[in-house]
Amino acid sequence: KRSYSITLLPGDGIGPEVVSVAKDVLLLAGSLHGIKLDFQEKLLGGAALDATGVPLPDDTLSVAKQSDAVLLGAIGGYKWDKNEKHLKPETGLLQLREGLQVFANLRPAKVFPQLVDASTLKREVAEGVDLMVVRELTGGIYFGKPRGFGTNEHGDEIGFNTEIYAAHEVDRIARVAFNIARKRGGKLCSVDKANVLEASMFWRKRVLALAEEYSDVELSHMYVDNASMQLIRYPKQFDTIVTNNIFGDILSDEASMITGSIGMLPSASLGDSGPGLFEPIHGSAPDIAGQDKANPFATVLSAAMLLRYGLGEEKVADRIESAVLETLNKGFRTADIYSAGTKLVGCKQLGEEILKSV
Amino acid sequence: KRSYSITLLPGDGIGPEVVSVAKDVLLLAGSLHGIKLDFQEKLLGGAALDATGVPLPDDTLSVAKQSDAVLLGAIGGYKWDKNEKHLKPETGLLQLREGLQVFANLRPAKVFPQLVDASTLKREVAEGVDLMVVRELTGGIYFGKPRGFGTNEHGDEIGFNTEIYAAHEVDRIARVAFNIARKRGGKLCSVDKANVLEASMFWRKRVLALAEEYSDVELSHMYVDNASMQLIRYPKQFDTIVTNNIFGDILSDEASMITGSIGMLPSASLGDSGPGLFEPIHGSAPDIAGQDKANPFATVLSAAMLLRYGLGEEKVADRIESAVLETLNKGFRTADIYSAGTKLVGCKQLGEEILKSV
Ligand SMILES: CC(C)[C@H](C(=O)O)[C@@H](O)C(=O)O
Ligand SMILES: CC(C)[C@H](C(=O)O)[C@@H](O)C(=O)O
Repeated sequence: KRSYSITLLPGDGIGPEVVSVAKDVLLLAGSLHGIKLDFQEKLLGGAALDATGVPLPDDTLSVAKQSDAVLLGAIGGYKWDKNEKHLKPETGLLQLREGLQVFANLRPAKVFPQLVDASTLKREVAEGVDLMVVRELTGGIYFGKPRGFGTNEHGDEIGFNTEIYAAHEVDRIARVAFNIARKRGGKLCSVDKANVLEASMFWRKRVLALAEEYSDVELSHMYVDNASMQLIRYPKQFDTIVTNNIFGDILSDEASMITGSIGMLPSASLGDSGPGLFEPIHGSAPDIAGQDKANPFATVLSAAMLLRYGLGEEKVADRIESAVLETLNKGFRTADIYSAGTKLVGCKQLGEEILKSV
Repeated sequence: KRSYSITLLPGDGIGPEVVSVAKDVLLLAGSLHGIKLDFQEKLLGGAALDATGVPLPDDTLSVAKQSDAVLLGAIGGYKWDKNEKHLKPETGLLQLREGLQVFANLRPAKVFPQLVDASTLKREVAEGVDLMVVRELTGGIYFGKPRGFGTNEHGDEIGFNTEIYAAHEVDRIARVAFNIARKRGGKLCSVDKANVLEASMFWRKRVLALAEEYSDVELSHMYVDNASMQLIRYPKQFDTIVTNNIFGDILSDEASMITGSIGMLPSASLGDSGPGLFEPIHGSAPDIAGQDKANPFATVLSAAMLLRYGLGEEKVADRIESAVLETLNKGFRTADIYSAGTKLVGCKQLGEEILKSV
């Protein structure tokens, strides 16, 4: 099959601007390889709340489920910040992840040589960083029950959540991570808090048990507090990291910031079958929305991940990634990654420059 | 009362070496201010496991409880890494925190001008960083119940923990943090994950409610994933941070690493009444134990915190902190903070140099 249906979820803030660029790039690169792409645009997040009253309309989820892959811009904004939980844009995203059962969140943090000075880390520390955080995305404390509010035995009000992992949840994310590590540098670091938490001891035990099947991968374990230090101290020690939902949320953002240019970083969320969800790791940046200032690189690179991991179209993915590098080499930059001596352009023009290099 | 009893818990690895230096410094500085200090040395962690079979002997806890303050070195080591949970050195530390009810963990992260180049962050980013993480230490997922292992409704094995906070727990840590922020830069940032977790929504609601009483303190809220990025991007934006036990574990270690010299950083753990627990934030460093290579500065600065926060002896604390700065200015360094042009010394000699400056 060389014809695919893609669900586009532009979302909020700068989402529509960056998704529009990525769509054009996908179309052009696809056509050069004889691939036909059908796009369906649907509502998610704040845009969906405003139009339909819910952050994930049924229609969006069912179209997404039936498509071959989903490309998301970004969601959220000040406007909906005070909403109750079930009416938050974020809740729509969590429901989408759960609905698509995309349990494996792949978040590469790679320093582009052209942008190494954007990092707040010293050049010699940031240069060459190229790591992948594999975050469990549909389990753990994000979804665990019981959760809520109540009163304890002393009559004191409480709020609570449950961190919980079942064997099959740990096993499937660990397998994804072992396979990725195998294709990358062959090193996997499992991050947990097994010196304190039972959920982490269980996680570590399952990961260790699987290690026998992946004897070609060098497995290590690290406590999450130490990992948060080591990412700053010597990020190049890491190849692939696997961790739970909440630790992955924190560490993958930390790892992204190490690169200094989160406007460059894509992500992929994959399930066992069914469409994957691809999105830039940056947010909706409401303060620059509609001003043609957004950096579309991360969404374009997410589109490349969509081709590679979602559709198995490696060659088209390679072509898009090369076009991004070429555009960087030609010196084109949006404001967030601009430095003296480079060419400052808006979101649209950067899109056109990428198209020229595709 | 100008006579105090101090419990010393040297612990494991380099613990005994650094505590021995701090004890000498306490004795000298105290005597210069007419203070009498009585020390009782007790077992904790691996040392206690080897001698008594448990990581926190009853005798240690009861002596600690009856004393005016507790100074701890460090615990843990490879030797006990594979122990079952109730026989881990870490468990002894958690039991001690719970036993002393020291719910407020104060972890300053301050960049010493003399050591700014030790940071992996660029000089302009690291220079002048001076923040305080106030971490809740006796609640949350560390102590929440239910916890353990089991089987779910599909017959799948599980591991689980409970993140839970009661109103009085949030209120008391928030009050400590507001008071500290008030004495520092007047800014408090409460870190949570209130866009996903009920325990965090509850936390935020309680902190907000208290804010009225501290209208002179500028309160902000930040999601934990963003906080982990902001600490790297622009750490100087922070003055005082307050957060829960697990987020505090991760973020305070991250903040320490930003300074580049975790061998310099002390911590204090305080309760409502009863003795506080004071310890360097570094670990037991088993690989350099017994080699006279350890950096005793963090433990000496923990002794200063003991005087300031534990005994209210501000002047003696000031004297010790000045002695540390003077020793740094004279150029004395242990290996972990050594750089060209400074004088490399061992743990003992550094102790003697500090004594000369007291
Ligand atoms: C928006 C929020 C719910 C989300 C998360 O915590 O997973 C975000 O931080 C992310 O990492 O994708
Ligand atoms: C040793 C461990 C149990 C402890 C913690 O997680 O609290 C340590 O990391 C700390 O921060 O003091």
